[in-house]
Amino acid sequence: MAGGRLGEFEFIARLLRPLASAVAGAEGLGDDTAHLTPPAGHEIVVTTDALVCGVHFLAHHPPDLIARKALRVNVSDLAAAAARPWTYQLALALSDDIDDAWLTAFCDGLALDQRAFGIDLTGGDTVSTPGPLTIAVTALGLVPTGRSLGRAGARVGDAVFVSGMIGDGALGLRASKGELAGANGDDVAALAARYLLPQPRAALGPRLRDFAHACMDVSDGLIGDLGHICARSAVAAVVDVARVPLSEPARRAIERDARLLELAITGGDDYELLFTAPASVRDALVALSKDVGVPITEIGRIEAGEGVRAMRGCNPMTLERPSYRHR
Amino acid sequence: MAGGRLGEFEFIARLLRPLASAVAGAEGLGDDTAHLTPPAGHEIVVTTDALVCGVHFLAHHPPDLIARKALRVNVSDLAAAAARPWTYQLALALSDDIDDAWLTAFCDGLALDQRAFGIDLTGGDTVSTPGPLTIAVTALGLVPTGRSLGRAGARVGDAVFVSGMIGDGALGLRASKGELAGANGDDVAALAARYLLPQPRAALGPRLRDFAHACMDVSDGLIGDLGHICARSAVAAVVDVARVPLSEPARRAIERDARLLELAITGGDDYELLFTAPASVRDALVALSKDVGVPITEIGRIEAGEGVRAMRGCNPMTLERPSYRHR
Repeated sequence: MAGGRLGEFEFIARLLRPLASAVAGAEGLGDDTAHLTPPAGHEIVVTTDALVCGVHFLAHHPPDLIARKALRVNVSDLAAAAARPWTYQLALALSDDIDDAWLTAFCDGLALDQRAFGIDLTGGDTVSTPGPLTIAVTALGLVPTGRSLGRAGARVGDAVFVSGMIGDGALGLRASKGELAGANGDDVAALAARYLLPQPRAALGPRLRDFAHACMDVSDGLIGDLGHICARSAVAAVVDVARVPLSEPARRAIERDARLLELAITGGDDYELLFTAPASVRDALVALSKDVGVPITEIGRIEAGEGVRAMRGCNPMTLERPSYRHR
Repeated sequence: MAGGRLGEFEFIARLLRPLASAVAGAEGLGDDTAHLTPPAGHEIVVTTDALVCGVHFLAHHPPDLIARKALRVNVSDLAAAAARPWTYQLALALSDDIDDAWLTAFCDGLALDQRAFGIDLTGGDTVSTPGPLTIAVTALGLVPTGRSLGRAGARVGDAVFVSGMIGDGALGLRASKGELAGANGDDVAALAARYLLPQPRAALGPRLRDFAHACMDVSDGLIGDLGHICARSAVAAVVDVARVPLSEPARRAIERDARLLELAITGGDDYELLFTAPASVRDALVALSKDVGVPITEIGRIEAGEGVRAMRGCNPMTLERPSYRHR
């Protein structure tokens, strides 16, 4: 199956070096280290995400999409911190079946999303593994000092907002496995694409500095992640499930099988921004939504107490599994 | 074999959070991101190393030593850049056989070396893998702006120096596998310990700013790594093999089997600092060596041309494999 593979040094020289050409301190990956100076008045935001073949993606997925997903889940974390992408380090543990064609397509995917999100490779490590392909990205972002957002800071009386559409990630995983019974081909393709290639809200995140009290990205599921905000902020939240924004393919899937609604609001991999802000900024958020071209929907409110209640009208919704846990 | 394992959130709360307590911007790992501000007048040095079970360490190795090695190989890269350790991100892909006792010992090892090297955890990611345990560390160091060292910069006329002892890493790997024929128990233990737990020259590295033109750490083998300096600096190097510093256990192993000399100077995992400096700083380096308690040995010189010649007296030594390649 393997069509031959470049040695480590050739891989770096031919495929990785062009990805690092824009960064002065990376010296074209000629050193074991890169040196970087954040612009004055900025702090660094740092995040790490690891992806394992068979767990976070499948062996037959296109290598360029795997690369872009590995980068995008980190860009999403930076966006949630209101930071703009800056640089990243790439640790690759390559399995035997990875050949030059795969590596080339993988690096093409990185190049594409480096341009899309304004982030550059500064270094990393490439090793062999007898196990599945494993990718760990550590990304650095920049934010004006003291202006980053996080899970803490939600206040009683805040409204809860979410960007984009919720549930496409979890439904898309089902769709990509052929497990979405009754869905038409277009819906399967649309949902699977959303799972394969998330859309991190890189433009929206830094704009939320002026509005949001707390922010995170939805990676473990809407309800569970809102629970993280509540725990860190020492508040409770109520979500009006009927207001949770669903894509048309997701809505159709849930109409066919009502149990999928719970999956949509508790499944992971949406990479939308979930944030709390004073209700008084509603109008400003409508304008911001138009400006960045990303829907923003109010789905609930912050109260005193602890935990998250999902409500359908006046009735609490009992959830079997409030949050997907990646293990 | 597995004695049960904490969930991801419990693992973070109980074992990882204490490792991040010293960093204000890490918020006790309560967020997906950490925010960091380098002190004024400093730039950040960043490096990544990945270790795979069965490739870079073995399953029966003590978990605390595996943790410390994962941290130390990165600290060594920072030292080679003349940077002092600052923070790190940890990506862990855990195999099924990893239980709580293993994780606890692993984190104890991290805690020990965090104190030893003045570095703190700021975040990371923990995932499951059906394959071998895989550890990727991205470490950040600090260096006064414009004062970092790298592979480029060696000048014709420089002397070549190395810290500590060379060859213990590669001979130690042999020893730890029981493949060092004729060695006594003490020598096997001493060499294996050097392989299992390298001694990064964290105190020496930043002190070399005042002397060295080029610097790197010996991870792929002395001759091969000197070749990297030559390539990046567009110079050649000559090494007097008789002057390469060997530990007593290494010397005895080579006396029994002369072929091991080549392994010593081309094998990897020494994590000593290899640097070039004007011959005029010899005396200052003697004083520095005493001050930091690390031997510094002059082993060769930089010339015009390209490549590395290993000389035994007046005779060039032909090397079968100039450098170990990690793949």
